[in-house]
Amino acid sequence: MAKKVLIVYAHESPASFNAAAKDAAVAALTAQGCTVEVSDLYAMKFKAAATTEDITGGVEDAENFCYAKEIKLASEEGRLADDIKKEQEKLKEADLVIFQFPMYWSSVPAIMKGWMDRVLGSAYAQEKRYSEGIFKDKKAMLSFTTDCPESVYSDTGISGDINVTLWPLQNGILNYCGFQVFAPQIFWDPATASPESRSSMLEGWRTRLQNLCGEAPVYFAPLDYFDKEKGFLLKPEVKEKYASKECGLTVGIHMGKPLPANSQTKAGV
Amino acid sequence: MAKKVLIVYAHESPASFNAAAKDAAVAALTAQGCTVEVSDLYAMKFKAAATTEDITGGVEDAENFCYAKEIKLASEEGRLADDIKKEQEKLKEADLVIFQFPMYWSSVPAIMKGWMDRVLGSAYAQEKRYSEGIFKDKKAMLSFTTDCPESVYSDTGISGDINVTLWPLQNGILNYCGFQVFAPQIFWDPATASPESRSSMLEGWRTRLQNLCGEAPVYFAPLDYFDKEKGFLLKPEVKEKYASKECGLTVGIHMGKPLPANSQTKAGV
Repeated sequence: MAKKVLIVYAHESPASFNAAAKDAAVAALTAQGCTVEVSDLYAMKFKAAATTEDITGGVEDAENFCYAKEIKLASEEGRLADDIKKEQEKLKEADLVIFQFPMYWSSVPAIMKGWMDRVLGSAYAQEKRYSEGIFKDKKAMLSFTTDCPESVYSDTGISGDINVTLWPLQNGILNYCGFQVFAPQIFWDPATASPESRSSMLEGWRTRLQNLCGEAPVYFAPLDYFDKEKGFLLKPEVKEKYASKECGLTVGIHMGKPLPANSQTKAGV
Repeated sequence: MAKKVLIVYAHESPASFNAAAKDAAVAALTAQGCTVEVSDLYAMKFKAAATTEDITGGVEDAENFCYAKEIKLASEEGRLADDIKKEQEKLKEADLVIFQFPMYWSSVPAIMKGWMDRVLGSAYAQEKRYSEGIFKDKKAMLSFTTDCPESVYSDTGISGDINVTLWPLQNGILNYCGFQVFAPQIFWDPATASPESRSSMLEGWRTRLQNLCGEAPVYFAPLDYFDKEKGFLLKPEVKEKYASKECGLTVGIHMGKPLPANSQTKAGV
């Protein structure tokens, strides 16, 4: 079955490495028969700030305004701003969402955070979340450039283990919404790389794209490991099951043990 | 000496708990003789997206546009957009910066990420960073609300250890710029708390503010622990020094060992 792919893209310059990575993905996926849609956030001048203007027809509780609750309600009632509606339509159609961006301050650029805050906002205040989340039949992945070598983001490097930095994005946002998360595509410091090395990075990406949809996702603990009635803590039987293991369950749910190595950067670890 | 404090504030509703926390800080710090400036990002309609428009008089390298490099250069040459200049002036004056926000998707709201991307952008591409960073004589801290209880963000909770979630913000942004980082002020789920409990949270914050400037900062590894010539990895003698310790150095620089407990949420751990 032909897949539908949404690329959420955040770089202003069409000559950037990020543009080349986005173009490579469009070409490789289209060649496989996928339908590819690109949300070019800077070109769209996408509104980043989550505001009451995102809800048409007035908010429910202006006194104690809670964006996530209001936007969920507005979504159910068809009262979202048009730009959010359009992105949510694209998202609804998509089997796979690729976020392509340059890492800014160990995270996504503000304009992309704005897409997440506003477009995914109505997925936040759901009862269904994590492995039961509303996008559980979809895949998502981060594809990004850094301006430093890989060593800097290692567990003895000055910026610390990249698996830690990725946790809030991949668990806190993507996994929360239910997405099955493919391992990130990380382009280490293309800006200072030689032209050959940049080409070879892109070639590696093209090769990966050939079988991307067949990849196993990154591991996250399933929702039923946690006790909803007891503050979403691990159930005693799960804690017991993992007690003798050398490592924690995931980066965040580490249980006071060493983190499982590469668990946010490789599939199924 | 009277301190100057900048509060970067991101909530739209003046009746919100975040507004109350901001107002409490203004009142308590002013009463101590501090000068307090507030950047109310939504009221200012602060531009969140980092774009070429942030640089006046044209960019240096449009072909390979790198925001951090361009904004550093523009900053040195006085060619930044007026709104960035104004915020940088406030920042220059400040001894302490408090970021007051509701946590959105395990991070700051997009409008605040925009402040960080744009106002702190020129601090990014510096040679001087981390403990030698350009703001090393300043303090900074995060003060935020969540919409879940503390258990959810524990090392056996579904969202994982809050210390992991805070690492990219506190190390990747604040510590990178050189700020001495005070332990975060976390208001757990005030929206569902009783009025008494909300009052008591604010009272706790007011009490803390009495001696905030006398607090010790959160621990981060000093810059000279790392070898700049070897990919900013820990120097062999430092690795050796910490080899026999039970825990890693920090959350990110965990050396394959268990994370030091509460190291991003308590001073000097």
